[in-house]
Amino acid sequence: MSNPTAAMIVIGDEILSGRTQDTNSNYLAQQLTMLGIDLKEVRVVSDDKTQIIGAVNRLRMKYTNVFTSGGIGPTHDDITADCIAKAFGVAIDVRADARAALAKNYKNPDVELTKARLRMARIPDGASLIDNPVSKAPGFSMENVHIMAGVPAIFKAMLAGLLPTLATGIKILSETVNVAQKEGDIANALGIIAQDNPDVSIGSYPYYDNGTYGCNLVIRTASPTRLSDVTAVVRKTFVNN
Amino acid sequence: MSNPTAAMIVIGDEILSGRTQDTNSNYLAQQLTMLGIDLKEVRVVSDDKTQIIGAVNRLRMKYTNVFTSGGIGPTHDDITADCIAKAFGVAIDVRADARAALAKNYKNPDVELTKARLRMARIPDGASLIDNPVSKAPGFSMENVHIMAGVPAIFKAMLAGLLPTLATGIKILSETVNVAQKEGDIANALGIIAQDNPDVSIGSYPYYDNGTYGCNLVIRTASPTRLSDVTAVVRKTFVNN
Repeated sequence: MSNPTAAMIVIGDEILSGRTQDTNSNYLAQQLTMLGIDLKEVRVVSDDKTQIIGAVNRLRMKYTNVFTSGGIGPTHDDITADCIAKAFGVAIDVRADARAALAKNYKNPDVELTKARLRMARIPDGASLIDNPVSKAPGFSMENVHIMAGVPAIFKAMLAGLLPTLATGIKILSETVNVAQKEGDIANALGIIAQDNPDVSIGSYPYYDNGTYGCNLVIRTASPTRLSDVTAVVRKTFVNN
Repeated sequence: MSNPTAAMIVIGDEILSGRTQDTNSNYLAQQLTMLGIDLKEVRVVSDDKTQIIGAVNRLRMKYTNVFTSGGIGPTHDDITADCIAKAFGVAIDVRADARAALAKNYKNPDVELTKARLRMARIPDGASLIDNPVSKAPGFSMENVHIMAGVPAIFKAMLAGLLPTLATGIKILSETVNVAQKEGDIANALGIIAQDNPDVSIGSYPYYDNGTYGCNLVIRTASPTRLSDVTAVVRKTFVNN
């Protein structure tokens, strides 16, 4: 049986303008790898209805889970929740449980829960809430699509509550062997090792740093025995002891 | 006339496993923003033929330019060039000019240009080379698709040669106003400013840092006058002097 799969949609003009470096997808990738959920694809899209709805509908059909980050705040450019409602063809409105969660963030919710803030309690019909221990405004899951905030501290906090509820797979184990040689000098021999061990994934990640070339060879498999066997072959072939 | 558009495809299992934080797309985004080329979408895909070919064919039809990073080295997992050939339905083989460029990297190319290294001189029919001043192995442009290395230093060097050859647009100017208030406290008033100035894009990027909430308001337009006018309104409304 193969592992559950996932895709991520990063929503926001600030990523595509280069203003902000997205780090949420890297954090999610690390978390999913530890759980045996295979992240297959990441898409960064702008704050644009057509793009968001298109990506959600394409990816939710294709993968076990879809995670989104961004666009669920109180301002006019936060359109993710509405796009999810459109993508699923359901209504969206302020919901009592979301409003109650949100109210916890304010000393005087009757005054402070402004019309703008109440936008954050608008939840598509049929969704379940994702807890936000940081700033209270909840995320939500609509079927297999999980909608979270873009602010990294809040994204991480929401994910911490969500991940234990998801089906996990067999964790892929990995070993990294650093080789202080140019990739081209080891490529032939590495190709033969890869061919001899088709059940194990072997990746080569070259780097170039201050005039020095080298590469990290990453061996990946779910089997601890195969991992240590193939890692030993790679070490013996490329690393002088 | 609207600006030229772009998409980026980041290729590599190491990004999707969380092992490596992609920084090439952020660098590209900043460069394109300065040139008035609108980056509309980024996709991260694995070292998988179907995924790469699918993304290339979908995005090259949709945008003026497509940039890729990763998968053009000498090892068995470097499959980008072959995928591009497949995507365009053309042949691919070692090409004399690419081989000559590559040879410059080696003192004794007759010995050092191994079969594995020669993979880096395989260029799809009809492509033009992109210079690689760092490690010589060239990238290439196939129609509107520009194939570059994943190693950041090489990606940047290739891009420096490529960008001056592309059609550019009207540069979008921006101003950022930092507001030391919760997004929810300014959202109503900000929404009114956005409505009053539909020709100007106003984004709100909240942050949460060590218990402090705030947001950066980014005003974007091609018009210097409109930029300073709307920025003045935003400052006057939210920032005490």
